[in-house]
Amino acid sequence: MKIGIVNASSRFSRERADAVHAWFAANVRDGAVKVVFHPASFGKHGHFGGDDASRAAAFIEYANDPRLDAVWFARGGYGSCRIAEAVLPRLTDVARKKRYLGYSDAGTLLAGLYKAGFPHVAHGPMASDAVRSDASAWRALNWLKRGDPTSWEPTLHEDARPAVAFNLSILDALVGTALEPDLTGHVLMLEDVSEPLYRVDRMMFHLTGQASIRKVAGIRLGRVSDIVENDPDFGLTPEEIVRYWCQRSGIPYLGAADIGHDRDNKVVPFGPR
Amino acid sequence: MKIGIVNASSRFSRERADAVHAWFAANVRDGAVKVVFHPASFGKHGHFGGDDASRAAAFIEYANDPRLDAVWFARGGYGSCRIAEAVLPRLTDVARKKRYLGYSDAGTLLAGLYKAGFPHVAHGPMASDAVRSDASAWRALNWLKRGDPTSWEPTLHEDARPAVAFNLSILDALVGTALEPDLTGHVLMLEDVSEPLYRVDRMMFHLTGQASIRKVAGIRLGRVSDIVENDPDFGLTPEEIVRYWCQRSGIPYLGAADIGHDRDNKVVPFGPR
Repeated sequence: MKIGIVNASSRFSRERADAVHAWFAANVRDGAVKVVFHPASFGKHGHFGGDDASRAAAFIEYANDPRLDAVWFARGGYGSCRIAEAVLPRLTDVARKKRYLGYSDAGTLLAGLYKAGFPHVAHGPMASDAVRSDASAWRALNWLKRGDPTSWEPTLHEDARPAVAFNLSILDALVGTALEPDLTGHVLMLEDVSEPLYRVDRMMFHLTGQASIRKVAGIRLGRVSDIVENDPDFGLTPEEIVRYWCQRSGIPYLGAADIGHDRDNKVVPFGPR
Repeated sequence: MKIGIVNASSRFSRERADAVHAWFAANVRDGAVKVVFHPASFGKHGHFGGDDASRAAAFIEYANDPRLDAVWFARGGYGSCRIAEAVLPRLTDVARKKRYLGYSDAGTLLAGLYKAGFPHVAHGPMASDAVRSDASAWRALNWLKRGDPTSWEPTLHEDARPAVAFNLSILDALVGTALEPDLTGHVLMLEDVSEPLYRVDRMMFHLTGQASIRKVAGIRLGRVSDIVENDPDFGLTPEEIVRYWCQRSGIPYLGAADIGHDRDNKVVPFGPR
């Protein structure tokens, strides 16, 4: 099995790629799973890991390459919304059969792939953060190999409804665009990182104010971590904020989700299971 | 003439209100224009200038009060999206005749008022920042008194099309919600403050990705100030970002607008003039 790693977002360092290779050398000793980084992953163009054209071309090349079994996002940051609409129409039936795993900024491309009917798209650890924790790496790898249900976010075993998971900031920035998938009847899991709570509140106002999002089966809240200080104290916890906007908009609040910008981030395959 | 000042957003200090009263005492010596702060403006509830119910009630009371000729927003920050949908259905014909002036977070309520057909709604200096500069204060006051065109953003004298102006973050957070007005054929002016450029880029992706926003006559960019450092350097200026997304989405880029989070912020009356 061979996994192609691509970078659609912010700059990615060779040192981090070396760490990924080292992890596989130490942990997958029989070489049954190989990883390869697209060389364009290390590009530098202002904020981005290479300009839009090179990041788009790299993603298309790996997605369409019949020698690769899966596409793993290198990292998040910011940038995949700039390339998603150029990438999607150029993907072939080869690309459609693969598994795609990432989260955070990569969620924009995952949304577009899911909207385009790709059956194996999931929110979960990326190459860059998988190697920070063996458990994260195995969770990602086992899903990329065979969609292993032991990698799933645990509530998915109890709730048979289709699901998706997104970084709140990312989903909030794609509703109403050509990349927004139809989430009718889905359990929507949200997580976020490095935001002050007034922004979390504003994003929930916006998200739950969308007619499309009011059709979800319900919202689960993952971890909201590294919260930026709100001066004065915001006065509500992230869970209270999400419950409030769910209640106002008539969306069922379903409880916690075991996802977040951390090593415990579980895998959420998009759609029916 | 009597202007009612209300706070729909973050906490507002009595010291700032004292400064507004002092400005009027020193500059409007004949007492021809009086200002009155709603007492609820000084409330404190977590992040907000009083809880949602008290801020909503204060706005409704002043808007519907026949003894007041205009409603001036005290300040921005965050919070008007929480009360706008409760406020709008409770406004009377008395409220409909008044002038409303503010910007930044107050833009959410201005959007809702404009959508509801209120004819005298404008983006411009608020009470809190007007008193930082005599020119800002007179610009606001002259528009509140009689809609003085000398207060207008200067391109409005040359371009007869209907216009609106918003803080980018605020408009970005209300598209698709019940508060979004129909901006078909409008010149849309945008400004922002205290954002890193990757967020400006992401908001422009989202905003220009909306079918509704693609119907505007064009976009003008006001000042983007106090930009939060992007590490590494983002690689594009705010104008380059806005031009890029306008070009991608087929929205004409019309040039600069003389608005921003500063003392030079000009008045943009919403709609036809």
